[in-house]
Amino acid sequence: MRTRISLLGSIAALVCLTVAVSHAQQGAGRGQQAPAAPGGRGAGRAPTAPPPINWPSPALPDGPIVLDTAIQHQLQLVVTKGLNQPWSMAFLPGGEILVTERPGRLRIVRNGVLDPVPVKGLPAVQAAGLAGLMDIALHPRFAENKLVYLTYHKPAAGAAPAPGPGGTPGMITLARARWDGAALVEWQDLFSALPSGNASRIAFGKDGMVYMTVGYGDTPVGNPDPAGAPPQDRMSLAGKVLRLKDDGTVPPDNPFVGRTSSRPEIFTLGHRNMLGLAVHPDTGAVFESENGPNGGDEINVLQAGKNYGWPVVNYGRFYLGPRVNNHAWQEGMEDPLVFWVPASATSGLTFYTGDRFPQWKGNVFAGGMRQGEVPRSGHLERIDFNEKWEELHRESMFWELRQRIRDVRQGPDGLLYVLTAENEGALIRMEPAAGPGKTQ
Amino acid sequence: MRTRISLLGSIAALVCLTVAVSHAQQGAGRGQQAPAAPGGRGAGRAPTAPPPINWPSPALPDGPIVLDTAIQHQLQLVVTKGLNQPWSMAFLPGGEILVTERPGRLRIVRNGVLDPVPVKGLPAVQAAGLAGLMDIALHPRFAENKLVYLTYHKPAAGAAPAPGPGGTPGMITLARARWDGAALVEWQDLFSALPSGNASRIAFGKDGMVYMTVGYGDTPVGNPDPAGAPPQDRMSLAGKVLRLKDDGTVPPDNPFVGRTSSRPEIFTLGHRNMLGLAVHPDTGAVFESENGPNGGDEINVLQAGKNYGWPVVNYGRFYLGPRVNNHAWQEGMEDPLVFWVPASATSGLTFYTGDRFPQWKGNVFAGGMRQGEVPRSGHLERIDFNEKWEELHRESMFWELRQRIRDVRQGPDGLLYVLTAENEGALIRMEPAAGPGKTQ
Repeated sequence: MRTRISLLGSIAALVCLTVAVSHAQQGAGRGQQAPAAPGGRGAGRAPTAPPPINWPSPALPDGPIVLDTAIQHQLQLVVTKGLNQPWSMAFLPGGEILVTERPGRLRIVRNGVLDPVPVKGLPAVQAAGLAGLMDIALHPRFAENKLVYLTYHKPAAGAAPAPGPGGTPGMITLARARWDGAALVEWQDLFSALPSGNASRIAFGKDGMVYMTVGYGDTPVGNPDPAGAPPQDRMSLAGKVLRLKDDGTVPPDNPFVGRTSSRPEIFTLGHRNMLGLAVHPDTGAVFESENGPNGGDEINVLQAGKNYGWPVVNYGRFYLGPRVNNHAWQEGMEDPLVFWVPASATSGLTFYTGDRFPQWKGNVFAGGMRQGEVPRSGHLERIDFNEKWEELHRESMFWELRQRIRDVRQGPDGLLYVLTAENEGALIRMEPAAGPGKTQ
Repeated sequence: MRTRISLLGSIAALVCLTVAVSHAQQGAGRGQQAPAAPGGRGAGRAPTAPPPINWPSPALPDGPIVLDTAIQHQLQLVVTKGLNQPWSMAFLPGGEILVTERPGRLRIVRNGVLDPVPVKGLPAVQAAGLAGLMDIALHPRFAENKLVYLTYHKPAAGAAPAPGPGGTPGMITLARARWDGAALVEWQDLFSALPSGNASRIAFGKDGMVYMTVGYGDTPVGNPDPAGAPPQDRMSLAGKVLRLKDDGTVPPDNPFVGRTSSRPEIFTLGHRNMLGLAVHPDTGAVFESENGPNGGDEINVLQAGKNYGWPVVNYGRFYLGPRVNNHAWQEGMEDPLVFWVPASATSGLTFYTGDRFPQWKGNVFAGGMRQGEVPRSGHLERIDFNEKWEELHRESMFWELRQRIRDVRQGPDGLLYVLTAENEGALIRMEPAAGPGKTQ
């Protein structure tokens, strides 16, 4: 059955039939327990999914779902369910998609079908709080070397992984392994940054280097000494984007190599919790997105050695009310390319450069864990720029689905792929809709 | 039939059934022609509704509609349809509600029922572009003097009202008339500011003065000399909030009275197009809301003689991409209390001080003509502040209804009333929902 959610751009007599379940029933019914994970280096310890972070989302229809959009008109969404808090994805040359699940599993989707058996070969993962298994990226020469790069929170040495929101943070770690066609083998931890509950994205630059984000949290009332906070401290890796060689060592042309009181891994500083990282396939520009506190989410264009301001300047507010800074810019700090007030809880980031959605060519897509106000619905945001990379429009999509969006990527087929962040999560393939009303 | 739109805060299997009408059919079917207006000083000339401004919205259900919200849990919406681009409302002591319609009609709603016959006694109105019949407010001593104040765009002397988006702007005019129990009589134009296509809100201060907004537009590329633009020019009334006595003359304690190169009517300067104005019923503080260009919508707290920055500083962008100003604040200009990036197209504004929604007490409500990104859905926004009037949370409501929201007011009954901006517009009364799930 094709579910038509044709709300937009049409005159619609809208009747929403909902099957509501009371709040009391939600806890029990929302997949708080992750399925046991088989095999791999973590074998015998079932990765445990942390509880859901925000609000319970309604179940997605099975799809395909038809959605209208502003300029592309009609989309068909093909939904692959059965993922538990999926976080990132990578496209194998044969068409399979590898999907990380935050509790510590790697899954494989073939032609829209999820293999029920997780991929073997992963280590124990500290899936506490917001942490867990994070990003995945193929080496630029994957065709030859079959190397897959991942980031994850590694349990402290000797300690069992602490499940649940109160667990000890694991070490944010960059690792690589070889894909043998069915499993990861020869897992190798390359670089551990620091113990942290924050996210870590990775992307390979056109320079062949690994860009790795190491997020930083803060307190609801802010920091009494913003200029002395870890993201401003070049001796700390917190709140930084790192630049590493593909073996995890420091490239000699990093901006702070040989500088005093500086970690040589640092590429940029002054970041908060980064949930998006993308390299423009034509220009090689590295775009990064991060969550502000209450407002002040940002997309930044990274330049070696620059300071992106957190927590000295930001457009948002601390959770108890005060502005982070009354004047959201100061000399020596970079203004964001895009910012959000109120927050969108921006997440995965990609450039659209394909041919399947011609009117979206050159646009940036950003996931969102909320819809702009009190957390009620995530969305997928399309941002259109002029030739100077000045923002022209933003379009919010997927809000009808009321799912948190964790990641968005362009596939090698020129389609867009989206991951929801839910316990009952899904991979969504976006296609131009066939049939009446299609504009392609 | 009670339509349940219970999307929020519940696990819902969501099936939206839509009756879609193709784009080709929309123009013909969307009430582009206003009904003829009877009687009054404009008698014989039917006010003509300008075409819809943005996108076609789906028809509202007849209601009552049940909606969930974040902290108040469940609302029942009672819908009064049949209004054509309603703009503002005033509550008569007997319980009736007077509603202005932008094409130039005044309507009356009794116990949720719209009188099919418009109120008599209005003059010709220049309902071109965004202009027309605007705000309505009762005199603070209405019980004695029965005076009703209105703002409207008055056709140029001798000219017939020019309908349609390309019409000559009328003069933004403050008028008053006496309510004789069934009609307006003794209509009197008190003050005409300037010819303009922008909005005009009015509110009576606790000081007994009339605060009147006079909006200012701009070009897509901005102004090459922002500091010399009309909103910064104290000899122009454009982009200003005026303060007038109830007879339309200038109070001697206005901030620029007796100052050179200044219009004495000015209370504050540096505004763009103002669509909201509200006086706090306890403190008397005058809050004003205005639309930025692409982003940069604001709520400001007005203080005599202060400069709110437009178009010198703002958080938004001109429509072709450039930021209005890279640094959204400068010495001598007031930062907004609240701002939006991307735009919400903020509209009507009110304080909630009633007892029917205890958890909303002290909150500000702001209408929105869009949902934060590309214009697809308006919304009603609830903003919660701490004791220092620093923002804590924003909640977006009504987005399921996909109606532009033009105005929101607290009624004397402690309920909230909302006007949609649609050609097939409605007055919506928000009540705590009865029945299962209610939290009141």
